Amino acid sequence: MSTSAARTPRRGRPGHARDDVLRAAVTLFNEQGYEATSVSDLARRLGLTKSALYHHVDSKEQILEVALESALGGLEAAMEQALALDTPARRLAGIIRGAVRVLTEQEAEVTLLLRLRGNSPLEVVALERRRRFDHRVTELVREAQAEGLVRADLDAGVATRLVFGMINSLVEWYRPDGPVPPEQLADVVLTAAMDGLRPR
Amino acid sequence: MSTSAARTPRRGRPGHARDDVLRAAVTLFNEQGYEATSVSDLARRLGLTKSALYHHVDSKEQILEVALESALGGLEAAMEQALALDTPARRLAGIIRGAVRVLTEQEAEVTLLLRLRGNSPLEVVALERRRRFDHRVTELVREAQAEGLVRADLDAGVATRLVFGMINSLVEWYRPDGPVPPEQLADVVLTAAMDGLRPR
Repeated sequence: MSTSAARTPRRGRPGHARDDVLRAAVTLFNEQGYEATSVSDLARRLGLTKSALYHHVDSKEQILEVALESALGGLEAAMEQALALDTPARRLAGIIRGAVRVLTEQEAEVTLLLRLRGNSPLEVVALERRRRFDHRVTELVREAQAEGLVRADLDAGVATRLVFGMINSLVEWYRPDGPVPPEQLADVVLTAAMDGLRPR
Repeated sequence: MSTSAARTPRRGRPGHARDDVLRAAVTLFNEQGYEATSVSDLARRLGLTKSALYHHVDSKEQILEVALESALGGLEAAMEQALALDTPARRLAGIIRGAVRVLTEQEAEVTLLLRLRGNSPLEVVALERRRRFDHRVTELVREAQAEGLVRADLDAGVATRLVFGMINSLVEWYRPDGPVPPEQLADVVLTAAMDGLRPR
């Protein structure tokens, strides 16, 4: 029991490990906007002094950089895994499933990524990585079209945007305790993307 | 020729009619965030003095109010039109088509609505109207499920969120001069929602 108590952060006083600081900061950015959030706001939310906060992170921009690396690194790793699969159908299904997983596991970081406006060089570079990811998904859609797995009358880029519109919306509304449990979510999205709403 | 020249606003000097002021303001809100935009920023963007700007609008909040009324009023009118149709299939197709139309015709205003965080009573009321609209769409999905038009194994609320994830993403990426012309967009989205990506 004492071991368990030692592991559980005390209520009302957030844990001060770097990961906790980063996650709380990203959540606050998502609530009130990155530009509108000051280091003082972050310190207040975390119940830390500014100097204690600077013990964990160098700057507000560093938090953004780490969060964007986490979101983009996750998506890029999912792409590598999908590309290692052995058929166009599996590769397309793989990236849809992988993206759903990253979006739910790193919801705060991906939300931040999706709302970037390109207001700094760091954001511009992140948006460029996001565009490269989108282009690689479009290539997988095109490959699936060549195999007759995806309608050929639909522009591959448009199909990608529509499917990722569905996937990206998860950060806005998905709750693990809602009608779709996490282990079924990827299947639900994949079926909706490939077969639509009509009964099979 | 002189008539045409008189109709065309001079380059480099935006038109000062109230609608132009409102549209430019909403565009600036979307670029840099509503909270982060001051009345001075708006005046600068429009090439007006602050007092000239106040000739057109009472406050920054009034601009937000008018824009949200335009977006929500458009969606609610689309819902009324859909509800007047005579079968569940037509009503569901009607609201999907109607929402696509509103999102492309009032892209700036809908973008602003979709990014609201509920930071003021005005925003809270708008978010409540948006939720009511979503619930009415969910009712149309449920009605279509009862008729066997939509898979019954999918939660109606989840189906609505997935389809509106696709529709709402249009404000992020759709361009009228891209691969899908405006007059085909509603059909493309409706087909993707109902039939998915697989060839029919």
